[in-house]
Amino acid sequence: MSNLRLSITMSLDGYVAGPVQSEENPLGVGGMELHEWFFPLNAFREMHGEQGGETNASSSVVDERRANIGATIMGRNMFGGGTGPWGDDPWRGWWGEDPPYHHPVFVLTHHAREPLEMNGGTTFHFVTDGIESALAQAKDAAQGQDIWLAGGASSVNQYLAAGLVDELDISIAPLIMAAGERLFEGLRRGDLKLTQIRAVDAPGVTHIKYQVG
Amino acid sequence: MSNLRLSITMSLDGYVAGPVQSEENPLGVGGMELHEWFFPLNAFREMHGEQGGETNASSSVVDERRANIGATIMGRNMFGGGTGPWGDDPWRGWWGEDPPYHHPVFVLTHHAREPLEMNGGTTFHFVTDGIESALAQAKDAAQGQDIWLAGGASSVNQYLAAGLVDELDISIAPLIMAAGERLFEGLRRGDLKLTQIRAVDAPGVTHIKYQVG
Repeated sequence: MSNLRLSITMSLDGYVAGPVQSEENPLGVGGMELHEWFFPLNAFREMHGEQGGETNASSSVVDERRANIGATIMGRNMFGGGTGPWGDDPWRGWWGEDPPYHHPVFVLTHHAREPLEMNGGTTFHFVTDGIESALAQAKDAAQGQDIWLAGGASSVNQYLAAGLVDELDISIAPLIMAAGERLFEGLRRGDLKLTQIRAVDAPGVTHIKYQVG
Repeated sequence: MSNLRLSITMSLDGYVAGPVQSEENPLGVGGMELHEWFFPLNAFREMHGEQGGETNASSSVVDERRANIGATIMGRNMFGGGTGPWGDDPWRGWWGEDPPYHHPVFVLTHHAREPLEMNGGTTFHFVTDGIESALAQAKDAAQGQDIWLAGGASSVNQYLAAGLVDELDISIAPLIMAAGERLFEGLRRGDLKLTQIRAVDAPGVTHIKYQVG
């Protein structure tokens, strides 16, 4: 059975991106700081075709998150930002020509667009008929493997409110952002019953994993 | 030097109490669930003059939080709730005649009241001239030991915004509360620079400690 697994980094006060997101600053003001625990890792360097980097307590968490993932779901902002129709020669997103997914990625959007095949096995599929449809398509594509729910806050919160997420792995960065895109907004008490599975104390971050239901 | 140390339990979505706080339900709707990790512990039983209970990974965290504390600061709601003047024969708060502090406790309030001496070394002092005054009085009383900033959200957020807190030890309960009293509200980006000191994976809770500044 395919599980929908959220893994995401949030600030101690619950934000997964800063305010004023833009093409130059896709994570918003201060949003890059959320991921400072990730950049020094060997796993991050390898994603970008580089060598070196360190291995620490976060490394096995990153491996765990990537294991057995056959498809990814993300919001339009996480693919490439912008609003409205895509236009005739649309931007190919900010993941570059060899995105670090290597499997089908389903992008939630209000505007239709042809699939976009990149190098390395990543194809972006643009889904206009809602979160359930994107999940069904991702499950088909994943062929029995799990699905990574990647972000951003708006997409994730819709899946959480609909009770469609099976597992949460939250990296808590030592930051107070005070503004931006907040995780867990729009939920009601009782929407999610969580059981803590494990917590990992890593340099500059804590990773907490929960089972839902 | 006396440090001001916050230790508090919050839900994964940042609440330290539920909505609709009342005398019968001092932590608000669902607020008691935040502390479910604490109730089975031997340390909790002992606080209430009972025996038994378990020892687990949370036990050393609780010991650490209590060590070297010479005074406590809390908001009026955490002492006993209510608003307005105290009246002629005011309630003695919900901590009972032998409160689990055993040192001076400074209660932030807008309404003057004589100190209230309880059994076991706890005296409640009611401070009407603001958070800095309460901290100065607590430092005097602590005689070189540290001060515990206990709650609730409103008092804690005032101390955080004023840059007066030296250490945060946050217990993250596996709950989405969705409403209630939120920690870290009213702060601005940059108000707090945090360094993660350690995280502890304990049954049903994760304890993360940060140094401020």
